[in-house]
Amino acid sequence: MNDPDLERLDAADPLRECRARFHLPPGLIYLDGNSLGPLPVATPGRMSGLIEREWGEGLIRSWNAARWVDAPRRVGDKIGRLIGAQPGETLACDSTSVNLFKLLAMALQLRPGRKVILSERRNFPTDLYVAEGLAALLGAGHELRSVEPEKIVEGLDDQVAVLMLSHVNFSTGAMFDLAALTRAAHAAGALVLWDLAHSAGAVPLTLSADDADFAVGCGYKYLNGGPGAPAFLYINQRLQAAVRTPITGWFGHVRPFAFETSYAPAPGIEQAQAGTPPILGLAALECGVDELLRVPMTALREKSLRLSELLLSRVETELAGAGFEIITPRDPAQRGSQVCLRHAKAWPICQALIAQGVIGDFRAPDILRFGFAPMYLRYADVARAVAILGELMRTGGWDRPQFHQRATVT
Amino acid sequence: MNDPDLERLDAADPLRECRARFHLPPGLIYLDGNSLGPLPVATPGRMSGLIEREWGEGLIRSWNAARWVDAPRRVGDKIGRLIGAQPGETLACDSTSVNLFKLLAMALQLRPGRKVILSERRNFPTDLYVAEGLAALLGAGHELRSVEPEKIVEGLDDQVAVLMLSHVNFSTGAMFDLAALTRAAHAAGALVLWDLAHSAGAVPLTLSADDADFAVGCGYKYLNGGPGAPAFLYINQRLQAAVRTPITGWFGHVRPFAFETSYAPAPGIEQAQAGTPPILGLAALECGVDELLRVPMTALREKSLRLSELLLSRVETELAGAGFEIITPRDPAQRGSQVCLRHAKAWPICQALIAQGVIGDFRAPDILRFGFAPMYLRYADVARAVAILGELMRTGGWDRPQFHQRATVT
Repeated sequence: MNDPDLERLDAADPLRECRARFHLPPGLIYLDGNSLGPLPVATPGRMSGLIEREWGEGLIRSWNAARWVDAPRRVGDKIGRLIGAQPGETLACDSTSVNLFKLLAMALQLRPGRKVILSERRNFPTDLYVAEGLAALLGAGHELRSVEPEKIVEGLDDQVAVLMLSHVNFSTGAMFDLAALTRAAHAAGALVLWDLAHSAGAVPLTLSADDADFAVGCGYKYLNGGPGAPAFLYINQRLQAAVRTPITGWFGHVRPFAFETSYAPAPGIEQAQAGTPPILGLAALECGVDELLRVPMTALREKSLRLSELLLSRVETELAGAGFEIITPRDPAQRGSQVCLRHAKAWPICQALIAQGVIGDFRAPDILRFGFAPMYLRYADVARAVAILGELMRTGGWDRPQFHQRATVT
Repeated sequence: MNDPDLERLDAADPLRECRARFHLPPGLIYLDGNSLGPLPVATPGRMSGLIEREWGEGLIRSWNAARWVDAPRRVGDKIGRLIGAQPGETLACDSTSVNLFKLLAMALQLRPGRKVILSERRNFPTDLYVAEGLAALLGAGHELRSVEPEKIVEGLDDQVAVLMLSHVNFSTGAMFDLAALTRAAHAAGALVLWDLAHSAGAVPLTLSADDADFAVGCGYKYLNGGPGAPAFLYINQRLQAAVRTPITGWFGHVRPFAFETSYAPAPGIEQAQAGTPPILGLAALECGVDELLRVPMTALREKSLRLSELLLSRVETELAGAGFEIITPRDPAQRGSQVCLRHAKAWPICQALIAQGVIGDFRAPDILRFGFAPMYLRYADVARAVAILGELMRTGGWDRPQFHQRATVT
């Protein structure tokens, strides 16, 4: 299965030394960094320092002495550098779902005459669910309106308060034109909220330059923050004085430790905090983000597209006739950092691949998803993954009873 | 400063062996476990196993293989045993502020004709802020009404949808009669939401038997879950089919991995989840809770009251005339697991104590707060803390320039 051309590519890869910064079990090909990023080598040491020294020895004093109190803003600003935000526009806090709730409520308050959250049917479910739940909570005509992706621009009527989209689609890998859709939303008098779960750390982003209003994103995918890592949120500086968070927790108060009885928001992005920040999760997230900050996003993007192009072309040649449909755009400008294949037997095929040491993931009902994290993925890995998949299809090795069993989390 | 009577008490203490289960810096007297519990000795090993083995080696597979997916419910049920909940009534998730928001919104929806959240003026600020913010978000006459503690029962009029109280007050240590106030709220047709931040793991609780409707609480205080640990929420089983969470995230969906486009709540307590659970934080929280489950809560309570009584009596004798006012009830039935003293110079006194190795905390504007965690605190520690405080007051040792400097977090 060796391919000298690919081995030369890997040897000449400007990112080749980054791989050693991640813990990757030997022999495993990990194409699931878009679902849970791998463990950075630096993380265990940082976590034991935090746990044993800062918590164990410093105890309550570490809120000041170890600057725990600054972590949401400090980690947020680091993520901000990855997404093209200005300092003070990004905060690491809560989960993506909770952050969506906060920012959608802010957006609706900024457009009081408008009642519609516009999205697309194939958005990630939690985005749709949170919008649906918020509309139900607020009542008074508020609604989530979901349209086909190609109907978004015409759906921007004068009832739309906020356009909520995932920049890169979780189940197809298709990427929207963030700048163009932001302009279209603004031209229609609407605000825009981008879900960057599959973009942050994966594709170059210029949120401030594109004048995006709001964004959220995920810490445990390309940011390598660990399972259930804190998420992030972004609020454009020009909106920060006008927005009001719906979840007015004490860490968003202007003087949390004055213990005043009435709420007064902190100025700036800090008002979007709610409760006490999750220090363990933020520390692990910071380690993951620090790895990405070592390399230019343009270099990551260039390699990511080469990796996905390699997988696409090998699927076309080596898996022709095996029942796979490529549902990720071939146009690099419309592609995130993943490739998705539809197959009627996607579930057992995915399980059989995992058993062979190739970890991708399954998305119901029939999608195989492969994510590309260029810091640790090699060209040879991608070719080998397709070769293993081809072998499984030719031999029928995917069709064994144990691969048909369903798990809780898919 | 040795006191043979106290040393005998410590030697005969049935909880004396628990102290070795916590990492406590030598020479330090830690009276701040009600603000940030100390590190359990078991936690670092569990965390490195989670990080290096489950995340590092297992990667995405650990959601099933290491049962990460069950953590909110599993840890929730363990906390449930500490608060007298039935299995399936408690969930570990999000922050206390976010959980307050969710449960208050549920409560208001269950009492659609009523618009008032009733609380007391001295409740912990985040509780008041969150209620204020939710009322503002919902509009339509919703309001937070805060009364003096002694006016609560008469404040329960036919406009009150939910009575929201902290069981033990953060700044006085006073404890409400949970069962009696729950009955009073129910008699007035209102629901009740208890904040157990200063109760869970500190005083015996029988939420289910007392028929409490809702509760929230904190993971980083007496539960020893680490800085910013996930919080918990409790929903009485009899309400679970009727409530609807306002933050309808994918982990609260009945089939999160079916990726359906429309929200359908999970049955039972799981619907109160929002986003992906914070696995690192939950693992550390579970270690802390496991320690408390080793000992009967009645034994903890008995020792806690002896410790607080010891501090109170020593303050009365050794600090007479030094300007301290005891603001914690002398009646044990009305006292949580902390003692609060008012003093005009509370801030520098607190700093001077910390410099002497006695860690309590300051609560604005003028309160010194000492928490009692009976698993690791000794009678001799309490007596020594008062002796050190007495010496600081006699010598004026608290009145040095460095002790007057203010920090971010107090």
